[in-house]
Amino acid sequence: MPKRVDHEERRRRIAEALWRIASTRGLEGASMRDVAAEAGVSLGQLQHYFATKDELIVFALEHISGLGEERIRRRIAAITEDPAPRTVLRECAAGMLPLDDESRTGLLVGIAYFIRALGDERLRRHAQEGQPALRGFLAGQFRQAAESGETVPGLDPDTEAMLLIALTDGLTSSALLEVITPEEALELLDRHLDRLFVA
Amino acid sequence: MPKRVDHEERRRRIAEALWRIASTRGLEGASMRDVAAEAGVSLGQLQHYFATKDELIVFALEHISGLGEERIRRRIAAITEDPAPRTVLRECAAGMLPLDDESRTGLLVGIAYFIRALGDERLRRHAQEGQPALRGFLAGQFRQAAESGETVPGLDPDTEAMLLIALTDGLTSSALLEVITPEEALELLDRHLDRLFVA
Repeated sequence: MPKRVDHEERRRRIAEALWRIASTRGLEGASMRDVAAEAGVSLGQLQHYFATKDELIVFALEHISGLGEERIRRRIAAITEDPAPRTVLRECAAGMLPLDDESRTGLLVGIAYFIRALGDERLRRHAQEGQPALRGFLAGQFRQAAESGETVPGLDPDTEAMLLIALTDGLTSSALLEVITPEEALELLDRHLDRLFVA
Repeated sequence: MPKRVDHEERRRRIAEALWRIASTRGLEGASMRDVAAEAGVSLGQLQHYFATKDELIVFALEHISGLGEERIRRRIAAITEDPAPRTVLRECAAGMLPLDDESRTGLLVGIAYFIRALGDERLRRHAQEGQPALRGFLAGQFRQAAESGETVPGLDPDTEAMLLIALTDGLTSSALLEVITPEEALELLDRHLDRLFVA
């Protein structure tokens, strides 16, 4: 199916154009025409793939999230074949911090999406769908750690999962604002995990 | 000085118009003309007070932050005349969650400002100035609590202050996205504080 491959490639190229705009001057003032120009396609071609800016942002976000997950999986695999829950939790959270250009770009696209979702019921429902899966996965890691005695007593896995998501999210905002460095954010994340795990 | 009072009143009225727009449809697409119309003044009058949208957002944010601080002070005073550090920390953090319409509006203005600051060096420097003061204040409360044996041993006040800011910030994002309710956010905040303070 050579034609289909070509379409996929073009969709990805358009998504990458959106990321470049998001990471340099933000999406606030960017029009569909700006994105088309950046991607080197006509406005008509762009609209053939994405009817609205929201559709484009959703696709670009899912694509960049997929790359981020792949990156986290590779990082964990590089550390060990059989990672302990703490390693998995730490690498997942670290993967959500702006520690390099690729993750920084992903986060900026995520924020552009977040802002639009605040004022748009349909986008908000879409945004809501992602978090329970992540929260469930992290809770599973905390549960596994608790069962094998790696965590401090009395820890509730689901509560810890949500606290970790919120903490990482907030550290990311401060790092993007350059109030703390990404390295300080990672250090603070480790201090938080130190408290939850027995040494 | 009746003339000066009138100017202050008008600046506040313009700021309130900006808040109404921010909390209903967001600032992304709002022009200075839109804000002027909402405030019931001409574009020329608006520009007499605020030359740019950024200037207006900075003023509106400072004004609404001031109201938020006043609200937190009143809440603490209503609980007790001599509040324990945990009460102060809890009420400060709770005051940064979207628990009512006024704080929700303040947070939405804050997010609009945050987004612009990401792409604007001057605004970013202004945004950076606020956090150290808050962090220092919260660290002082943690220090006081540690000195009187109210916290678990080995707690670093400055680290805890930054963790609390980041956690509250992240809980707020999830509450605004309606992934968790504001009440769940407050409950999670209490679970976090439970861990830091001796019962």
